[in-house]
Amino acid sequence: MTLSKTIGFLGPIGTYTEQAALLYSSESTLTPLPTIPAIGDAVASGETDQGIVPIENSLEGSVTYTLDLLITQSGLSIYNEIVIPIEHYLMASHGTKTSDISIIYSHPQALAQCRTFLHSHYPDAQQVASLSTVAAVTDMKNSGPEAAAIAPYRAAELHDVEIIGQNIQDNANNLTRFVVLSGTDHPITGHDKTSICFAFDSDSPGSLYSTLGEFAHRTINLTKVESRPTKESLGQYIFLIDCDGHREDRQVKEALDAISSKVSLLKILGSYPKWDLK
Amino acid sequence: MTLSKTIGFLGPIGTYTEQAALLYSSESTLTPLPTIPAIGDAVASGETDQGIVPIENSLEGSVTYTLDLLITQSGLSIYNEIVIPIEHYLMASHGTKTSDISIIYSHPQALAQCRTFLHSHYPDAQQVASLSTVAAVTDMKNSGPEAAAIAPYRAAELHDVEIIGQNIQDNANNLTRFVVLSGTDHPITGHDKTSICFAFDSDSPGSLYSTLGEFAHRTINLTKVESRPTKESLGQYIFLIDCDGHREDRQVKEALDAISSKVSLLKILGSYPKWDLK
Repeated sequence: MTLSKTIGFLGPIGTYTEQAALLYSSESTLTPLPTIPAIGDAVASGETDQGIVPIENSLEGSVTYTLDLLITQSGLSIYNEIVIPIEHYLMASHGTKTSDISIIYSHPQALAQCRTFLHSHYPDAQQVASLSTVAAVTDMKNSGPEAAAIAPYRAAELHDVEIIGQNIQDNANNLTRFVVLSGTDHPITGHDKTSICFAFDSDSPGSLYSTLGEFAHRTINLTKVESRPTKESLGQYIFLIDCDGHREDRQVKEALDAISSKVSLLKILGSYPKWDLK
Repeated sequence: MTLSKTIGFLGPIGTYTEQAALLYSSESTLTPLPTIPAIGDAVASGETDQGIVPIENSLEGSVTYTLDLLITQSGLSIYNEIVIPIEHYLMASHGTKTSDISIIYSHPQALAQCRTFLHSHYPDAQQVASLSTVAAVTDMKNSGPEAAAIAPYRAAELHDVEIIGQNIQDNANNLTRFVVLSGTDHPITGHDKTSICFAFDSDSPGSLYSTLGEFAHRTINLTKVESRPTKESLGQYIFLIDCDGHREDRQVKEALDAISSKVSLLKILGSYPKWDLK
């Protein structure tokens, strides 16, 4: 899928982001990096060829650190996207009896996403917050035989623990979208999308409407509309839009040219192949 | 400013939300509540007359828990808004010498917002994360004489500590907008705004464009456009819009009537007076 040799991903090892990275390119050298800005720096400086960060979850919404990185950092384009289902597993040390489990570790978001399962299967177990789903496995191992952890399947592989429950999240529609950052975006494939951001000098009535019209008049579908604060004044926003098509497609190119004359800032974040869920 | 007797706010006491609540109605009985959903429940059940929650910060963006509460909970309207500047103070126990300070506690967001100040004044001090800016003051008091905390002015009043630095945040444009939740929205004042959310059954090209057109054609200014996941499928969004005017103003009423025939869901979150920054 890619020829690049080194790919940074939001660590630590065992997270859903590593799972996405392995799915994207298992032959590359995958390097865990501690933060989203560190991945931006590594790619922009050429320290790694590409970088993988989460951008959106179907339940929680956008990862704002990633949006702000794309808006502010130069030398970064979106080269690809990856979408994976988020499947939470319940795991414990080998030999743990499920009837003995009295304490369950996980990241607060994962505990919240398994609320119904925990309520019906472990109503009396104490739920304890860990810093990440991977840290939860370490916390569980340090805690003694009556403990369990909610974490990705990959964490169970890495830590040699036993899986005692699978796909335990309440909502089956739990998907996370990741973007692959690179120095350039992807050549046209015919099955692409394009991400842009733009802003206006002043919020005159209709400026956003008029901008969206450049897509609507050309029947270009918008797959995402999002806003972020400019950080200069309350009520001033930068809009982020994903649309169908590649920036080199004639219709998309015309829309972007027309928009550039209406806005005070326009940044093309990249054109890249659409991910089809398997 | 209000006749209501009891107002719940996102606690604990000493937070910026309490500061907003005191500014809004210092004669009411103010009750700290632990979470944003708990405030929604208290107002919807009549346990408190009103509730105050943060909805947006000029640097960080929207408070997604508040948006999701407004989208999903019935029996809640926005009755008012409050905007306050976020001013971080550096504080320490009485008698602490600033040259001795070697450890500084605060919420990670506050530490990040004071990065330049900390780098130039306390380059060698250890920065330690606390659960909230108010908890940082307790952590500091428990830690010994060489500690300081970054917290709101109100926390210094409550904890009898000395202020050793004021307005230490890097960006002066740090404002937070709060909304006052109530069983009904506010009567018309002539200086109002209206918040709505809506969604579409399918994302046909131009459906958002056509909806925004109902505002643009009537020269109604949009002050905010935001999207949240529907939690049903990746790429399906609920849009949240703030516009100038009251839902009983003729132009706004016509726009809302026209929109209701174009969308699969329309919820009027409330009309309320615009807050003018003093």
